[in-house]
Amino acid sequence: MGRIHNFSAGPAVLPLPVLEQARDDMVDYKGSGLSVMEMSHRSKEYLEIITNAEALLRELMGIPANYKVLFLQGGATLQFAMVPMNLVDDPENQTADYVITGAWSKKALEEARKVLKNTHVAASSAAEKFTRIPRQDEWQLSGPRPAFVHITTNNTIYGTEYSYTPDTGDIPLVADASSNILSRPVDVNRFGLIYAGAQKNLGPSGVTVVIVREDLVGLRPNANLPVMLDYKPHVENGSMLNTPPTYAIYILGLVLQWVKAQGGVNAIETRNLRKAEKLYGAIDGSNGFYACPVKVDSRSRMNAPFILANDALTETFLAEAKKAGLSQLKGHRSVGGMRASMYNALPEESVDALVEFMAGFAQRNG
Amino acid sequence: MGRIHNFSAGPAVLPLPVLEQARDDMVDYKGSGLSVMEMSHRSKEYLEIITNAEALLRELMGIPANYKVLFLQGGATLQFAMVPMNLVDDPENQTADYVITGAWSKKALEEARKVLKNTHVAASSAAEKFTRIPRQDEWQLSGPRPAFVHITTNNTIYGTEYSYTPDTGDIPLVADASSNILSRPVDVNRFGLIYAGAQKNLGPSGVTVVIVREDLVGLRPNANLPVMLDYKPHVENGSMLNTPPTYAIYILGLVLQWVKAQGGVNAIETRNLRKAEKLYGAIDGSNGFYACPVKVDSRSRMNAPFILANDALTETFLAEAKKAGLSQLKGHRSVGGMRASMYNALPEESVDALVEFMAGFAQRNG
Repeated sequence: MGRIHNFSAGPAVLPLPVLEQARDDMVDYKGSGLSVMEMSHRSKEYLEIITNAEALLRELMGIPANYKVLFLQGGATLQFAMVPMNLVDDPENQTADYVITGAWSKKALEEARKVLKNTHVAASSAAEKFTRIPRQDEWQLSGPRPAFVHITTNNTIYGTEYSYTPDTGDIPLVADASSNILSRPVDVNRFGLIYAGAQKNLGPSGVTVVIVREDLVGLRPNANLPVMLDYKPHVENGSMLNTPPTYAIYILGLVLQWVKAQGGVNAIETRNLRKAEKLYGAIDGSNGFYACPVKVDSRSRMNAPFILANDALTETFLAEAKKAGLSQLKGHRSVGGMRASMYNALPEESVDALVEFMAGFAQRNG
Repeated sequence: MGRIHNFSAGPAVLPLPVLEQARDDMVDYKGSGLSVMEMSHRSKEYLEIITNAEALLRELMGIPANYKVLFLQGGATLQFAMVPMNLVDDPENQTADYVITGAWSKKALEEARKVLKNTHVAASSAAEKFTRIPRQDEWQLSGPRPAFVHITTNNTIYGTEYSYTPDTGDIPLVADASSNILSRPVDVNRFGLIYAGAQKNLGPSGVTVVIVREDLVGLRPNANLPVMLDYKPHVENGSMLNTPPTYAIYILGLVLQWVKAQGGVNAIETRNLRKAEKLYGAIDGSNGFYACPVKVDSRSRMNAPFILANDALTETFLAEAKKAGLSQLKGHRSVGGMRASMYNALPEESVDALVEFMAGFAQRNG
């Protein structure tokens, strides 16, 4: 069959040209006589692949020279533990602050609590069922000098996203940007550390990008951290402390090439804005047939949750959508309803097709 | 160009039919309208892929029902830390025993020392430059009841391999089998835990297989282990605690299908034996032109290191071999000389080509 419209929250749709390139390279990469998967990670061919991927990420995100870029394993979930293990130099006394905006920031805090004696919730929208992002003037930090403040820049389940970058001054701002990295321009200088599982905007699952300011690396030289959980040896070995997830990094490089060919992050943002406006417009203009529970100023461009006024129609909606080639629209099991994920690689035509389907469905069932 | 002869120690050669299948599936997996990389890990299509991969591994290795199979991230290096974190229920008092047969077992011990107060070297061939595997009657355990005994079943750098499975009775035997898993039949019942990075015999880098006896899971319920480092939640979530490395697991499944199509592990072993006999035969029959430093009873079927009597010819050998399409024959940087890795997927013709080249080179330079 033809390509489906893939609204999966992750692993998610990839650009078709990336898949076509991967297909053409699979058995024989550029006349090298082998697949990228079969290359020694220390071979000249592979070093070129990983070096180019890092250079391109630096270029696209404008990553300053005093930041290190790592390609690790374990997803954001391993970063939930690695961040407090590495960024708090006195775990018995120092505090780390968390802003809670949904399931993922709660999990990040949970892991920090295993590692640190003191953690602090600086703000939370739990009382409002995570339907908005707290403003910075609502934050109550633990004191003048927490080790860092942790935020989740986009929340896949509740469909909220920071529309602003918090200003934390000298306190390192740490961001889980798994689900909106590279979807909009960001000033990396405002962050101490940014991490992201690749499987939404960067590539396949199995590789995690960490961007860390160099003064935050190696704060705990005698901490007896398992070597895989310590940023320093990863930095010293250029992400080759052990065998990296070579193929996932190769695909990530192809995705970055595609982003560049689209005109870079600014052009991607323009298209993401258009896609989001179309979908939220369809929801808001449906005279209440559809509704999005998220406050307008906190709505995510990446993940749009929506419900039907008549919840009894939800199963029918999903079944008919699937028949129309609109896939993975079921809301997260913890919230129900529908969710359309619209990452960078989701073609605008997929949103057009969804909006058209929604209008027809409303007409038939309104 | 055509396929090269790929003697890489890992990531390593994959079966050509696996790569061809991956190529054909890349843009549209079995008419599903999307790539495996784009599938939600919780979709029906993907669940079938991961379930089949586990079932096939169980079948091929004869894994008993009381063992769990996990697909994790982080390579063997993360297991170096996870094993002592999980299998020692009293890290202040209990001891874990290690048999040291090379660089990888040393690294495993190093990680254990960060986690445990007491570790013990039960045997080591360091004094003999790791040119053999100690016999079990040479072992000196720390006492009657170490938490486990750890071995490295095959040593990629020094080219040694256990020709026997140690009998540790009630003491759990833990094996890093990264570089010879699935290359010969093994009685899983003799082990408490087996782990293996996939990038030698199982598939691409980025996925690690852990086979663990179920009574060894969850020994430290209150240990505040980061969730990614605790086997129990991985077991409870069927390797889906977070997004697994979906594509690497899919390729691993294809490799397992190929192993089965070859006739299973017994047939693979027969071919591996033939390949190893051909290469070691060429070395031993060269009248001293080539030499393998490893004691005959400890020689690895997977990685054969060899040197030239005249070391000045090494660079020429490698350069001419490369021209002849024989790739990645350079010995590990820590030992020099040559190394031919002959994992399951290395075609017998590659060994034939190497043996022929070696004979010609000896003739020209003898």
